Amino acid sequence: MRIKIINPNTTLSMTKNIQLAGQKFVSPDTEVFAVSPSTGPASIESYYDEYLAVPGVIEEILKGDKEEKIDAYVIACFGDPGLYAAREVTDKPVVGIAEAAITVSKFLAPNFSIVSVLDRSRKMSEEMVRMHGAEDRCKSIRSTGLSVLEFDRNLEKGLKALSEVSLKAVEEDGAESILLGCAGFVSFVDDLQERLGVPVLDGVSPAVKLAEILVSMGCRTSKFLTWGYPENKQIIGYENITSLQNTRV
Amino acid sequence: MRIKIINPNTTLSMTKNIQLAGQKFVSPDTEVFAVSPSTGPASIESYYDEYLAVPGVIEEILKGDKEEKIDAYVIACFGDPGLYAAREVTDKPVVGIAEAAITVSKFLAPNFSIVSVLDRSRKMSEEMVRMHGAEDRCKSIRSTGLSVLEFDRNLEKGLKALSEVSLKAVEEDGAESILLGCAGFVSFVDDLQERLGVPVLDGVSPAVKLAEILVSMGCRTSKFLTWGYPENKQIIGYENITSLQNTRV
Amino acid sequence: MRIKIINPNTTLSMTKNIQLAGQKFVSPDTEVFAVSPSTGPASIESYYDEYLAVPGVIEEILKGDKEEKIDAYVIACFGDPGLYAAREVTDKPVVGIAEAAITVSKFLAPNFSIVSVLDRSRKMSEEMVRMHGAEDRCKSIRSTGLSVLEFDRNLEKGLKALSEVSLKAVEEDGAESILLGCAGFVSFVDDLQERLGVPVLDGVSPAVKLAEILVSMGCRTSKFLTWGYPENKQIIGYENITSLQNTRV
Amino acid sequence: MRIKIINPNTTLSMTKNIQLAGQKFVSPDTEVFAVSPSTGPASIESYYDEYLAVPGVIEEILKGDKEEKIDAYVIACFGDPGLYAAREVTDKPVVGIAEAAITVSKFLAPNFSIVSVLDRSRKMSEEMVRMHGAEDRCKSIRSTGLSVLEFDRNLEKGLKALSEVSLKAVEEDGAESILLGCAGFVSFVDDLQERLGVPVLDGVSPAVKLAEILVSMGCRTSKFLTWGYPENKQIIGYENITSLQNTRV
Amino acid sequence: MRIKIINPNTTLSMTKNIQLAGQKFVSPDTEVFAVSPSTGPASIESYYDEYLAVPGVIEEILKGDKEEKIDAYVIACFGDPGLYAAREVTDKPVVGIAEAAITVSKFLAPNFSIVSVLDRSRKMSEEMVRMHGAEDRCKSIRSTGLSVLEFDRNLEKGLKALSEVSLKAVEEDGAESILLGCAGFVSFVDDLQERLGVPVLDGVSPAVKLAEILVSMGCRTSKFLTWGYPENKQIIGYENITSLQNTRV
Amino acid sequence: MRIKIINPNTTLSMTKNIQLAGQKFVSPDTEVFAVSPSTGPASIESYYDEYLAVPGVIEEILKGDKEEKIDAYVIACFGDPGLYAAREVTDKPVVGIAEAAITVSKFLAPNFSIVSVLDRSRKMSEEMVRMHGAEDRCKSIRSTGLSVLEFDRNLEKGLKALSEVSLKAVEEDGAESILLGCAGFVSFVDDLQERLGVPVLDGVSPAVKLAEILVSMGCRTSKFLTWGYPENKQIIGYENITSLQNTRV
Repeated sequence: MRIKIINPNTTLSMTKNIQLAGQKFVSPDTEVFAVSPSTGPASIESYYDEYLAVPGVIEEILKGDKEEKIDAYVIACFGDPGLYAAREVTDKPVVGIAEAAITVSKFLAPNFSIVSVLDRSRKMSEEMVRMHGAEDRCKSIRSTGLSVLEFDRNLEKGLKALSEVSLKAVEEDGAESILLGCAGFVSFVDDLQERLGVPVLDGVSPAVKLAEILVSMGCRTSKFLTWGYPENKQIIGYENITSLQNTRV
Repeated sequence: MRIKIINPNTTLSMTKNIQLAGQKFVSPDTEVFAVSPSTGPASIESYYDEYLAVPGVIEEILKGDKEEKIDAYVIACFGDPGLYAAREVTDKPVVGIAEAAITVSKFLAPNFSIVSVLDRSRKMSEEMVRMHGAEDRCKSIRSTGLSVLEFDRNLEKGLKALSEVSLKAVEEDGAESILLGCAGFVSFVDDLQERLGVPVLDGVSPAVKLAEILVSMGCRTSKFLTWGYPENKQIIGYENITSLQNTRV
Repeated sequence: MRIKIINPNTTLSMTKNIQLAGQKFVSPDTEVFAVSPSTGPASIESYYDEYLAVPGVIEEILKGDKEEKIDAYVIACFGDPGLYAAREVTDKPVVGIAEAAITVSKFLAPNFSIVSVLDRSRKMSEEMVRMHGAEDRCKSIRSTGLSVLEFDRNLEKGLKALSEVSLKAVEEDGAESILLGCAGFVSFVDDLQERLGVPVLDGVSPAVKLAEILVSMGCRTSKFLTWGYPENKQIIGYENITSLQNTRV
Repeated sequence: MRIKIINPNTTLSMTKNIQLAGQKFVSPDTEVFAVSPSTGPASIESYYDEYLAVPGVIEEILKGDKEEKIDAYVIACFGDPGLYAAREVTDKPVVGIAEAAITVSKFLAPNFSIVSVLDRSRKMSEEMVRMHGAEDRCKSIRSTGLSVLEFDRNLEKGLKALSEVSLKAVEEDGAESILLGCAGFVSFVDDLQERLGVPVLDGVSPAVKLAEILVSMGCRTSKFLTWGYPENKQIIGYENITSLQNTRV
Repeated sequence: MRIKIINPNTTLSMTKNIQLAGQKFVSPDTEVFAVSPSTGPASIESYYDEYLAVPGVIEEILKGDKEEKIDAYVIACFGDPGLYAAREVTDKPVVGIAEAAITVSKFLAPNFSIVSVLDRSRKMSEEMVRMHGAEDRCKSIRSTGLSVLEFDRNLEKGLKALSEVSLKAVEEDGAESILLGCAGFVSFVDDLQERLGVPVLDGVSPAVKLAEILVSMGCRTSKFLTWGYPENKQIIGYENITSLQNTRV
Repeated sequence: MRIKIINPNTTLSMTKNIQLAGQKFVSPDTEVFAVSPSTGPASIESYYDEYLAVPGVIEEILKGDKEEKIDAYVIACFGDPGLYAAREVTDKPVVGIAEAAITVSKFLAPNFSIVSVLDRSRKMSEEMVRMHGAEDRCKSIRSTGLSVLEFDRNLEKGLKALSEVSLKAVEEDGAESILLGCAGFVSFVDDLQERLGVPVLDGVSPAVKLAEILVSMGCRTSKFLTWGYPENKQIIGYENITSLQNTRV
């Protein structure tokens, strides 16, 4: 089985860490690799960033289907950018990491808090919580005030900031599990879990495992209506995408 | 005052009709013009279409600010594609037509139904209703089964289909106003309203009028946090966009 | 175009300020004037006050239709007292100021806080938020502890109190815009906006502008069902009202 | 113990039937009597009717406290008009009949449907359901299309119409209990219950019994904040009310 | 009339206090007695405890119907354990004390806080609030950190702890009434109400009074569908229960 | 890895089919076996049935931990009976089949319908939908009118009934995936999926796969608060359980 992780931003050092996290718990016969798209922003912290990242994500999925014999995809950014579009262009399972972290936490704890990067991304995390049906479960969303790239540059400082806000989430907000709200946090899971005494989840490892079982059960995305292949029509620009595309005739 | 309407798809016959609808009720000293982006799909009916349309929308907004002295923007597709990203890259008011139609209908009737194009777009309309705080108001979302481009090609057939589903919305679902769920329907407003006896709203005319009053009151988008200018960072591709962009330093 | 603002309370000094706020951004060819009803309380801070204010509001609307050639109405109290009854007795647009402030803020910021008068009115503000579909948008409702009439008597003290609670709303609750929860606050908008750095909205100016565009688009309240003219029936008392009334036969 | 039922409309034949329903299950030492206010509409079917009814309701409550040694009040119209204002002007328990019917049904069945009068009142019934926390319980709201006064004039025709819509609620909507959405239906309870085989509740009898137990437990309305006595202030008109009123100094 | 209160735990000192609370406001011709089941935990603080308590509750209800001529039942634990099962096995009214406290508080105050025992039971209280349609009413759930049995052993210490958290609920959370979230708190009602100045409700007394009026109105649980008698089928174990049971053939 | 499936009812022919479904997609090094508790009902169709099933479920989990070296548990009834209690008594992952089916469907389709057994169980399915955060996803819950044991006795008749209601869910309700609302339906998955053309999910296979990945990632239930081990206290009866139990000292 081949699972392709798409880090929707173009910072390759993050892509490498994400690949390690994706491989952490994987079955022996599963091949996991992570890529960054050929276009897009160095990190995703605004709606603007997100929309400029998605075409690259779509391209990587189409390429995966046409050229790489991929069995399932993971979108490795906590905003799950382009998740529904991805499900339209392929019938292979696609899993987002916000989706995966929220999903797995529901089995382990009655509630969670999300600890994240900049304050401005808070609304995106709220949208993830709502999109994945966890409004009753989310105790709080706390941010460290550090940007995605600051984390990437200074892991130690990042870990310290994450520890502090996570501890507040547990002690003041009553969180019984912690979700790491950025794919750049994958290296901190074990450290944090030990310090906090509650389950700590990054989304990447769970997403890969979820993708694995969807494949092993033979699951395909429902093409019945909403996530059917896009209608065939003229598209200007995006030749890299349209040349790869499957459409509903 | 100059208001720029962005038809996020690249079908210019629709852009022309949209411009007419935008000019319908405009004040004498307001200049309204409609454009299509240089890239993107011929119509927007899937998440895939939507994501490929948004970069073009962003570009048109940045261009409006830098080169065209625009005072406010209207995004003229019923999915309000890229609305929040648009509000990040400019501090001028940006109004979506789903947002505008829903907003104005609240003043005129206790509830509404949306009549739209393909069944598959239904979920997008549901997301509009939720995003704009109208879940209690929406009686039903009904689709004609015709695509955006079929409407554009055969207005008469389109009007007939719209009449039929609108009538069902009024008689079976109890709708007391009708929202036209596609910018391609702007030509049908008066005909439909006469036939149905309840207020019928396309979003384009209301969006222009809403934009007008936001400008006349001197309103600017809050740059305090969520919709602040995007962080400054490397972006690969999209040179047409990044060369125009304002960022938070 | 003639727009009549009804200050539902009987304190004429407030009515005068409300008229000034209503005229602030108005188009040259729009005439705006504010009145207080002939009956009702000096201020509205309880359900009791509100119910004693509404018959006067209804009377002013009927009078507007019969005798004053009014094109649209604004109800200038943050509880929007009698809004739905007003929409029944006329087919001219009627706009409430809570409705207007909430509506306009949605275009300018992802969320808001309401700053208001007495703590006891908090539940009414909550009802406004829910009635106008903004539960997801409202970060907090904070009160100054001063009554409506204390504000009217001592503007400086009022401004100071408002500044303080507004600042808390921004800094502690994460509000990205501020709504002034009392028609008596109209004089404070500019001062507050400058101090806070986020959009500050009273409801009166936006309500007048919204009324203006509803008229300019030819909008009428849907008489289809819920807001149809009241049934014709005997009413004891209220001769001033019943003599003016339109009813559904 | 003395319980005063206020029929908020001025149709005395209905007041008489309401009194009978109120006395139906009452304890031997409880005195129950029903009145209509001196002002207001002959029936309540619109927001307009409701607002013209409430001042009369408030007056009857103040009179009850000052002159009639009342221990608790029932407001006998399915829209619970003025319920919160009534709770402000007295500390004696006040019970609405929509509130009572919904409350009691929760003990007897997992869900209910409301059967009511005119279609236009449907939104008011929806507001009752939400106000009394029963959105998850309400299967449907169905109307007979007959007005309140048509029921009062032709009981047999009314019963037939009610039977038919109630049966649909049970068979098509899955209702496991039926709430009668108009105080004018009190005479039909037993007949309907026999025909339908599910619990049928008018609100009047339950409201009186609920008022009884609130009194017998010594309960008083919380005067702590929201429902505290109204602030003392000038009120123009309503001398019959203001002369009786208790206010917060 | 005979009302049987079932204290679902097996601590008889609590059962005795519960009986006293149940008799506090009862009508002269009503007989009230409290029992503990023959099986189950000494207190209910976890889901585990709750599930081991419910079979005993069911047995007591079946016994009440078969052998004790009971007219109505009260389940006296704030989690309302087994409430819906109880309504299946009998057609006599069954009232839970969380249900009763929440129900009565709605008549007395616009909102409430729940004060309870251990932090871990907080989620159960949240479920009560939701199950009984009071999410809009609940200001906070606060716990004392003392276990049910600690309260039973040291009433004075318990009262002190309850006073403190209740005061915080009123002053910091804006609660306008207080619900006692454990049947073990029945002795504290009067003391607390005096100290706090807002209505304080244990659930036991209200539940008995509610049961009384359901009986006096001749109410029976709807056997139409959801709460119909259980299907007849083989059950292994629970002979004490199955020998008493009524089933749907 | 050893996964124990607990069929909460005592019908062994069902347990056997459930075991087959559990083994269907399992990894080579995972051992899966299904049991029925020693006590409880032959099928679960009412709250009564459910409550009599749970103690047996708890016992099987405690036994699994003490004597069978189990790594994870599956509760194989669509009501997920005792799920939270099970999570209290062990720190090994526990997965319910309603939870599993809903969870997996979210990855495959934007919405689902549940097809189930008797009408009376509908409310339980609604509770599952809400408990697992899928209210926005659930298009309908449809029942066949056949009991659990009728399915077990006549598979062909069952399949026919299921096909019919599933088809209605797809065609009339717009369901884009189908969840089988009873563990007794596991044999029908493949047949139904072929007939319907949309993903069809029983919960058993997904639950086993989800349990597998939770184990493989080293996940443990958060013992921080809500799902901590039960408090140590006297329990009367249930010696089979209490002799096996872990408690929080």
